[in-house]
Amino acid sequence: MIDKVEAVLTEYDLTGKQLINAQWSAAGSDQFTASSPVDNAAIGPVYSEATDDEVDLAVHSAAKAFREGDGLSVLDRVTFLEKLAESLERSMGRLLEQCVAETGYPVPRAKGELVRTIQQTRDFARLLREGSWVDARIDRGDPSRRPFPKPDIRSMMQPLGVVGVIGASNFPFAISVVGTDTVTALAAGCTVVVKGHPAHPGTCEMLAEVLRLTMDEFDFPEGSFSLLQGRGNSVGERMVMHPELSALAFTGSEAGGRALCRHAALRDQPIPVFAEMGSVNPVLVLPNATEQRCDAIAEGFVGSLLLGGGQFCTNPGMLLIPKTDAGDQLLERLSERIRGSAPPTLLHVGIAQSYRDGLVSRQAELAEDWVESESAVQAACGGLPALGVVDARAVTDRLIGELFGPFSLVVRWESQDELCELMDRLPGQLTTTVHCVGNEEVEFARVIRLMQIRSGRFLMNGFPTGVEPGDAMHHGGPFPAASLPHFTSIGMASIDRFVRRMCYQDIPESLLPMQLWDSNPTGIMRRIDGQLTREAIEEPSAS
Amino acid sequence: MIDKVEAVLTEYDLTGKQLINAQWSAAGSDQFTASSPVDNAAIGPVYSEATDDEVDLAVHSAAKAFREGDGLSVLDRVTFLEKLAESLERSMGRLLEQCVAETGYPVPRAKGELVRTIQQTRDFARLLREGSWVDARIDRGDPSRRPFPKPDIRSMMQPLGVVGVIGASNFPFAISVVGTDTVTALAAGCTVVVKGHPAHPGTCEMLAEVLRLTMDEFDFPEGSFSLLQGRGNSVGERMVMHPELSALAFTGSEAGGRALCRHAALRDQPIPVFAEMGSVNPVLVLPNATEQRCDAIAEGFVGSLLLGGGQFCTNPGMLLIPKTDAGDQLLERLSERIRGSAPPTLLHVGIAQSYRDGLVSRQAELAEDWVESESAVQAACGGLPALGVVDARAVTDRLIGELFGPFSLVVRWESQDELCELMDRLPGQLTTTVHCVGNEEVEFARVIRLMQIRSGRFLMNGFPTGVEPGDAMHHGGPFPAASLPHFTSIGMASIDRFVRRMCYQDIPESLLPMQLWDSNPTGIMRRIDGQLTREAIEEPSAS
Repeated sequence: MIDKVEAVLTEYDLTGKQLINAQWSAAGSDQFTASSPVDNAAIGPVYSEATDDEVDLAVHSAAKAFREGDGLSVLDRVTFLEKLAESLERSMGRLLEQCVAETGYPVPRAKGELVRTIQQTRDFARLLREGSWVDARIDRGDPSRRPFPKPDIRSMMQPLGVVGVIGASNFPFAISVVGTDTVTALAAGCTVVVKGHPAHPGTCEMLAEVLRLTMDEFDFPEGSFSLLQGRGNSVGERMVMHPELSALAFTGSEAGGRALCRHAALRDQPIPVFAEMGSVNPVLVLPNATEQRCDAIAEGFVGSLLLGGGQFCTNPGMLLIPKTDAGDQLLERLSERIRGSAPPTLLHVGIAQSYRDGLVSRQAELAEDWVESESAVQAACGGLPALGVVDARAVTDRLIGELFGPFSLVVRWESQDELCELMDRLPGQLTTTVHCVGNEEVEFARVIRLMQIRSGRFLMNGFPTGVEPGDAMHHGGPFPAASLPHFTSIGMASIDRFVRRMCYQDIPESLLPMQLWDSNPTGIMRRIDGQLTREAIEEPSAS
Repeated sequence: MIDKVEAVLTEYDLTGKQLINAQWSAAGSDQFTASSPVDNAAIGPVYSEATDDEVDLAVHSAAKAFREGDGLSVLDRVTFLEKLAESLERSMGRLLEQCVAETGYPVPRAKGELVRTIQQTRDFARLLREGSWVDARIDRGDPSRRPFPKPDIRSMMQPLGVVGVIGASNFPFAISVVGTDTVTALAAGCTVVVKGHPAHPGTCEMLAEVLRLTMDEFDFPEGSFSLLQGRGNSVGERMVMHPELSALAFTGSEAGGRALCRHAALRDQPIPVFAEMGSVNPVLVLPNATEQRCDAIAEGFVGSLLLGGGQFCTNPGMLLIPKTDAGDQLLERLSERIRGSAPPTLLHVGIAQSYRDGLVSRQAELAEDWVESESAVQAACGGLPALGVVDARAVTDRLIGELFGPFSLVVRWESQDELCELMDRLPGQLTTTVHCVGNEEVEFARVIRLMQIRSGRFLMNGFPTGVEPGDAMHHGGPFPAASLPHFTSIGMASIDRFVRRMCYQDIPESLLPMQLWDSNPTGIMRRIDGQLTREAIEEPSAS
């Protein structure tokens, strides 16, 4: 099978179609093409935009597949994820070639992401194999209790249903057709409908083909996975309004995320939308750090700002440095680096245009307090690295907003009160960071508390880019970092989005999932009568 | 202190005011009174409706209290919860007297609920003392990793912020001022603003006074708890729109829950609303069970239907029995019991009127297929127990909806296909139940799968009323059983609503919560590099 994947992908001719219910489909007449962000040249083939009927068929088929049963056993799902990782590895060459052409990413950037995506697929296999993540709980019954007998209550996480996924522009592997969202949803036992991102439709189709070929070897009900292509918002809007959809995962702009959340909230039966909508990720430099670590901070900050062309959700879009001589010096170091930096190629025309517009409006507001790269933009979608500088007391609401690309707002501050006021005005952030030396953070406890309240991840003496997809990671935070602050879109806990607790009262073992059997056949950690244990239940309940 | 609570409550004179920032306040001119559901007599005093300014002050004070710090240590919160349980116990006599007058509940019903509420407060103290619920995770760093060093990532659940609570009519203790919502929010470290239910404002005020006196003995920042009173929707709407609110918990009607969810979704920064909006809780009786357990099912079902006057979210509002001779006999047994039943006193005029209107419209639709109590209604808010009977193929959309009170729709079915079609039309349910004998459930696997997909709790050979607030309980389900299917409003897992994962990257122990220290001082279960363990970290990270 793996050889088949490799062979097919080496020679693969893109169809430009949707994959629905295991069939390639192109029912509509609306079409679009991808183009190179380097020179705007079209990248074949022509893609068919999914029609309303195709969206409906994909979601309905997924609902049918979900209803038909729990589908694969946990062990089968473990094997499936491992095979999927292998399939992706075997097809890496062709996937990277397509991805680099469509995104303009340098090969190491694209390859790093694909390797991480493969590793993460294996990590979820490991999570499933260990099995305790289902949070199994058993409260044993007591028929002799008065006035009413105590029932036997057992519960654990079960799949939510049909999960819609809307891929991101900036992570063609990790937040895409076979990224965290799809992998966790399938791992949990959900069925999935993905809308690929129109800036890299070929990469999306190839990933869908790898997934299809791998799924073919397992007993997935037909309809368990579909890929839809589409340039505008209509496919996503149709998906989120479909009565058989159970949840939607989205990573992208705040405007897009807000629109999807509102659509979902206005459904007859609202469903959760897990939207991750970005952040300015403020980095606060305290006075001693400014003095003692000036060069290291300047180097690290600009490296983080330019990583991936500034196109990370965790891009440090706000830097708070003190209004001191050392602060002036740090700003000068930062400025030198920005002036000498090379403009990256941004992902597509839309992002490049928004970035340029954002620079123009910010520069109009900040006038002379402006630093930008002195290199000319070469690529069609090139973006000029830039810094705007503003006094903490003069930060306007517009300046607080995220500008996707290699721009950061440098805020000069004089007091903790100013910092607290600014932090109070910021909406929810994916990350907040403090740079400090010695114990100077103690003096700044008030603003540090606010930074934690406002964000999902708090860093010290580091930079926010480079999200580790491990067990402890949280990539989310208060709105709009995430639409629901309880959930992460990266890391092992991201599977929690696509499950819900199912409770069983006085149900015989023949109808219970094995994780809730007395014998605990897979040895998972369970909470039995309030105690965490891997032990089996030896005794029958008190009776 | 406990003696003080007892002394104060014995003599307590109700003020009719809001409790805001530790002060009793009555700024507005709008007023309302409570009345007895037995004879409509007014129950003093006059209550002041909270003004917009009072709502704003309560939420703002709670936000200020939350920002001021983590407040109490975990150990202090454990002691606080234990003291609160004791305070409630000491003031039980006066609380029950007020509650029974305002709700019309029989004393055993009211007392059972208060005892459960006290027990649950102790259970949450136990949960906090054990401590593993924070789901602490540590992914150790590796400075030698290439190309980038691996950071040290730690995370655990932290409080969400300011939680709004809107109390329910039917649980004056358990889902009220000091019920699951408030107790879990305070246990998690949140601050709380409660809107009491206007049908039992005196009970609400007394509970607030017990809470205030108990909190006074601990270092809660001022503003950590407020009680608002109000008759209409304006107080709740003002709360949910307040920019400093982090989440809202609501138990009540579907219309009310939907309105609050929409308000929250349309905020500039949307917040989660945890609404539990009820359910018809279908009970399916399979053919062999109908034959062999006819009397037991009739007795158990009618007992469940009339429990608490039919005013439980888990009230069995739909009974599916086969169109067989045994089914006819079961219907006859049920009818006898309903005809001979005494009409309970419903909670207030609004519920009683809605119930009567619901009966009238259903009876108009069902005509002769109708059974009701032959006793006359005595109390002002009395409600006539009733059954409507309908063929599975004739169930209209209106008949599917919940009618709060002692009514159930009996659906006569002939085939599993009919059952599946009906189940597909039902919205999310708190519970679904099957009665079966031998292995007959195997033949009905399709509809049983659908019942599980549609609900939060699945029961066999039991009845849905009587929710056990344990570790394994789940009281929720797909919309509208709950607004967010991931969360429960009853049981130990209900604390998950009011926390979010906070992630710490490369943070020294002096700034970490103790649950994430290497030494694991409280011995909680943690996930370290993917492995669940109570061990401390002995070795420094690989370096």
